[in-house]
Amino acid sequence: MTPLIDGLQYANWSEKVFSQMRAGGVDAVHVTITYHETFRETVLQIERWNRWFEAFPNLIFQGRTAADVALARQTGRTAIFFGAQNPSCIEDDIGLVEILHSLGLRFMQLTYNNQSLLASGCYEAEDTGLTRMGREVVAEMNRVGMVVDMSHSAERSTLQAIEHSTRPIAITHANPASWHAARRNKSDTVLRALGQSGGMLGFSVYPHHLKGGSACTLPEFCEMIARTADLMGIGNVGIGTDLCQDQPDSVVEWMRVGRWTKAADYGEGSASAPGFPPMPGWFADNRDFGAIADGLAAVGMARAEVAAVMGGNWLRFFEAGFAARALATPQQTAARA
Amino acid sequence: MTPLIDGLQYANWSEKVFSQMRAGGVDAVHVTITYHETFRETVLQIERWNRWFEAFPNLIFQGRTAADVALARQTGRTAIFFGAQNPSCIEDDIGLVEILHSLGLRFMQLTYNNQSLLASGCYEAEDTGLTRMGREVVAEMNRVGMVVDMSHSAERSTLQAIEHSTRPIAITHANPASWHAARRNKSDTVLRALGQSGGMLGFSVYPHHLKGGSACTLPEFCEMIARTADLMGIGNVGIGTDLCQDQPDSVVEWMRVGRWTKAADYGEGSASAPGFPPMPGWFADNRDFGAIADGLAAVGMARAEVAAVMGGNWLRFFEAGFAARALATPQQTAARA
Repeated sequence: MTPLIDGLQYANWSEKVFSQMRAGGVDAVHVTITYHETFRETVLQIERWNRWFEAFPNLIFQGRTAADVALARQTGRTAIFFGAQNPSCIEDDIGLVEILHSLGLRFMQLTYNNQSLLASGCYEAEDTGLTRMGREVVAEMNRVGMVVDMSHSAERSTLQAIEHSTRPIAITHANPASWHAARRNKSDTVLRALGQSGGMLGFSVYPHHLKGGSACTLPEFCEMIARTADLMGIGNVGIGTDLCQDQPDSVVEWMRVGRWTKAADYGEGSASAPGFPPMPGWFADNRDFGAIADGLAAVGMARAEVAAVMGGNWLRFFEAGFAARALATPQQTAARA
Repeated sequence: MTPLIDGLQYANWSEKVFSQMRAGGVDAVHVTITYHETFRETVLQIERWNRWFEAFPNLIFQGRTAADVALARQTGRTAIFFGAQNPSCIEDDIGLVEILHSLGLRFMQLTYNNQSLLASGCYEAEDTGLTRMGREVVAEMNRVGMVVDMSHSAERSTLQAIEHSTRPIAITHANPASWHAARRNKSDTVLRALGQSGGMLGFSVYPHHLKGGSACTLPEFCEMIARTADLMGIGNVGIGTDLCQDQPDSVVEWMRVGRWTKAADYGEGSASAPGFPPMPGWFADNRDFGAIADGLAAVGMARAEVAAVMGGNWLRFFEAGFAARALATPQQTAARA
């Protein structure tokens, strides 16, 4: 049986949320632990997670390798894989890539809406592509086994990341712009290049990424998934709900504004609707993945295809993405001589 | 065959030093990575080590578990285990204990000569014993698998650490004060309590800890080891050379002065001899452990006893000390019900 994996969540974590993961049979979740936080502030977030791992050992544990997904299934728990939505956590120090990988960070976005030291975000007027440091950091992420995530990045930067990275990259939470023309959704050019390079797209349930917003229906969402699988390949798509359950609106403000402006920035929202939008009725929390699986079958996907989308593809991607490239050992060196 | 393990070094690391470890057949070394550095500064030191691991994969690798000592022997390399000589690296944040354990820190001294947030150093006039935070941090170190090291601590603090810790502790680099009455050497009361609790003493070759200083002879050093084994138990002693090879004198100044005073503090040195003292002729670098092993045999130790002192005891201690205490899994919880 293939696992159930969510490619991105950022909930207001609690025993309730972790229990819902178990009730929903979710085997692994990529969780955001940091946005605009510095390295030290990111470490404080990891410390919070360590307290949750200590408090709820029967519900969750920290995932570090793809094998931890199997361990999660065997022990009836959810494996939690850390990710960063912005590279603020490595500051201007490439050495922090390996440090954060040692602490379990398995995904890092190169940008979050704005220009970063590494690349351009999807809200910038100019798109630099990968910067000098960006190219170095992608190579270092490739070496240690940290996935390049371009969910909030601009088009040219994303295409260059796909090209420059020697491991497949991910867009953990977005939908096709051809279906819903949101700034955060991705062009067919990007999606095709992503699929051809072995990368992964996680389909988002966040209303700003949905055609019709909160009113988007399950069949519409599932039909979009089927069409995108036709475009990218059935092996290159998964779920990345972007579930922001139980978060106060102050959190979406931090995501959008960080410390980069003193003014309000509404991102995908607006002055009249600055907060988190209401979720669609068919996906409220971790217990609702079964509805998506049923919806995919209802639009004609075969059983094996549904399993691939609901977790099998992410598992294969984790297997290829999380392990450090082995250094040559003396035996290997000897064998090559 | 038992491994060769050194319980403490702080060299000016280089390919030369790593090559000498290999030439000397040293399987594992506990290396100091930090003294008075903050957390972020300590991370910078780990980054330096990561670059050395990347540059010299045929000589060294990072040790994280006792099993890495066997891996070192199998692959003809030296396993490097990280340690801190002072708790500055955890600042005032107990959560950093687990963070630093995740980054590979396996030893931490509770004090370095002075009062810390945790306990008293051996140069303080007053000895508080373990502080409130000290008791909490020892419990957290016990939980995650980080060895409490009291090499530079005061008597009462050391006895309380032995008593309070639920895992055996270590004095990684010191000698008996009854042999040489240096401030850093330890009373028979401490050594007896350490041995009875399953703890370890690593014998130091640093001249200030030797009777006669740099002129101490190998037979005198080895005779002292044999007598201390009689006092503590042959299973509770090892080597902890405190080798500070190739270090400029500015480094010993940082060790002693850090940022805690604007004045000079000579520690074990003096105004007329402020730098590193010359090593005894029979131990200059990692190639000289064979001389100590031969010296132990020459003072009458049996072959198995020599092997225990040269590494077997440290290996057993690593096995008991480095692994995190397992959290209850659902199966275990079910089995208990």
